[in-house]
Amino acid sequence: MLISVVGGDTAPADVLVQAEELGRELARRGCTVVCGGRGGVMEAVCRGARAEGGHTIGILPGVDRGDANSYVEFPILTGMGYARNVAVVLSGEAVIAVDGSYGTLSEIAHALNHGRPVVGLHTWSFSLGRVASGGSNGGAGDQAIIRVSDPQDAVEKAMAAAFGRQR
Amino acid sequence: MLISVVGGDTAPADVLVQAEELGRELARRGCTVVCGGRGGVMEAVCRGARAEGGHTIGILPGVDRGDANSYVEFPILTGMGYARNVAVVLSGEAVIAVDGSYGTLSEIAHALNHGRPVVGLHTWSFSLGRVASGGSNGGAGDQAIIRVSDPQDAVEKAMAAAFGRQR
Amino acid sequence: MLISVVGGDTAPADVLVQAEELGRELARRGCTVVCGGRGGVMEAVCRGARAEGGHTIGILPGVDRGDANSYVEFPILTGMGYARNVAVVLSGEAVIAVDGSYGTLSEIAHALNHGRPVVGLHTWSFSLGRVASGGSNGGAGDQAIIRVSDPQDAVEKAMAAAFGRQR
Amino acid sequence: MLISVVGGDTAPADVLVQAEELGRELARRGCTVVCGGRGGVMEAVCRGARAEGGHTIGILPGVDRGDANSYVEFPILTGMGYARNVAVVLSGEAVIAVDGSYGTLSEIAHALNHGRPVVGLHTWSFSLGRVASGGSNGGAGDQAIIRVSDPQDAVEKAMAAAFGRQR
Repeated sequence: MLISVVGGDTAPADVLVQAEELGRELARRGCTVVCGGRGGVMEAVCRGARAEGGHTIGILPGVDRGDANSYVEFPILTGMGYARNVAVVLSGEAVIAVDGSYGTLSEIAHALNHGRPVVGLHTWSFSLGRVASGGSNGGAGDQAIIRVSDPQDAVEKAMAAAFGRQR
Repeated sequence: MLISVVGGDTAPADVLVQAEELGRELARRGCTVVCGGRGGVMEAVCRGARAEGGHTIGILPGVDRGDANSYVEFPILTGMGYARNVAVVLSGEAVIAVDGSYGTLSEIAHALNHGRPVVGLHTWSFSLGRVASGGSNGGAGDQAIIRVSDPQDAVEKAMAAAFGRQR
Repeated sequence: MLISVVGGDTAPADVLVQAEELGRELARRGCTVVCGGRGGVMEAVCRGARAEGGHTIGILPGVDRGDANSYVEFPILTGMGYARNVAVVLSGEAVIAVDGSYGTLSEIAHALNHGRPVVGLHTWSFSLGRVASGGSNGGAGDQAIIRVSDPQDAVEKAMAAAFGRQR
Repeated sequence: MLISVVGGDTAPADVLVQAEELGRELARRGCTVVCGGRGGVMEAVCRGARAEGGHTIGILPGVDRGDANSYVEFPILTGMGYARNVAVVLSGEAVIAVDGSYGTLSEIAHALNHGRPVVGLHTWSFSLGRVASGGSNGGAGDQAIIRVSDPQDAVEKAMAAAFGRQR
């Protein structure tokens, strides 16, 4: 099972500790990590996954495999810049968002837009301003995100959501 | 000057009225509208712009020009699905977000990620959950969005931000 | 009617003369030029079209409008590198290929793959090596390209092919 | 080492036999296969690679993992249509082209454009029509393709070219 992990190129130290543990847990549960292949959260989750013998795929914005962090086993070079964010979230059967930059916010939005389950670990909250009329998506906002507070729970919930989607 | 307008495929009636007026105002000010080329907010803004003799460009997800709304003067067919959202926001010197779907949220995020000025008319609010440590983008959240409440102000602020960016 | 013109970033002087005349003829016939927005053949065709008051759209690989040649009226910024070649050929109702780099060859191939009519002016020839078994596309090779030897004929044939496709 | 294999969705039976043997040989030599993830040559090469315990990555045009052939171990879903062809060739350290459709021709062109070594097994030949002036790429044509006639030689030459590129 492929699980996408999205998060920023830089992140606070405690976030990186959680991202690495997330990678370890995904590998222990037999999941392959898909991510954007760069630093920060992406590097930490790949490092954790490789430490437990898991597979890691990094879908990179550029054309050079040297852009990948050292823990990406399979670098996919797109040359498409941030358009690659769409491929990152589509390739997972569920998406785990950790903290995050604006790129991460775009990935959460693309995932929800495509119906991919999203699990959020200390990540973005959002809502449409038009409370009165509900706005164009029925006021759904970010309720679709499954909020968790630790890596084990993130993996548990992501796998359950992915299985639910397969059935 | 090209200005991107992003918004959902469907929207409440009062939003559509504002989107059409936004198109009119952009055309009166000599701006060309760039949008995703589909229905809802995109159609309304194109209809307004064409009514005032302005140019309209629709950057479409599919391969068929029949997917464009009737008020798109220049349909750009990408065949790239929602990855085209990146091109929609990059092509404007400023981005005006009106109400919105998850696709719109992705466009706001891509715009902020690429440093394009974003003007918001009854659109998404968002913030990073990690208040304590500030998160990976320094807790910037959506303060970068210039909030307005009517179409005239939206155009005014978008043009000013675009000029500021050029200088 | 949008017509795509594809050709290299650099080209011999006599090719550039023909590309500029091609732009002039397209504009005189009321067609809008779509191209990759860069130099060489792309710049020459835009210069010709603008000289006759025609519209020009440049679909660029990068994120900076300064990358467009001076004769692009509407720069579309994709940030997707050469993946933008697909959008260049899809957006025209017919494609005119002039001389060409490897990028041009990719554009001809994408156009044929998507069923866009292709008119060739001193451009690539190609065939599948497997003459015996015919290969996977039935040995079609480049017979689908409508070969011409001057700009007027190129526009004539491209418009006829585009009308044929619409019917 | 990742090696990209490009070829059509359909192909003659003898081509499929060679593609499967190509997959076997790549796996025996420790290479991971990257391909477009669909049928024909792509399926045959994945089947061969998996039979020898190799890894296979399929970079798909759509959003549904069910589009992948049964021998794709890691499906990458791009949702970007044929723009994904660029990612297929960029991700390999060398590209092996087998027979081919117009999509394959686009992949060869993108690979040469990005400086990826290309090995051709019964695949496209091409040249610029302008023999006199040499055309815009100096008349290079397809001489950059390393022609081979059997799968073992294809792998040998692709690995040598990839190593040469790394040095």
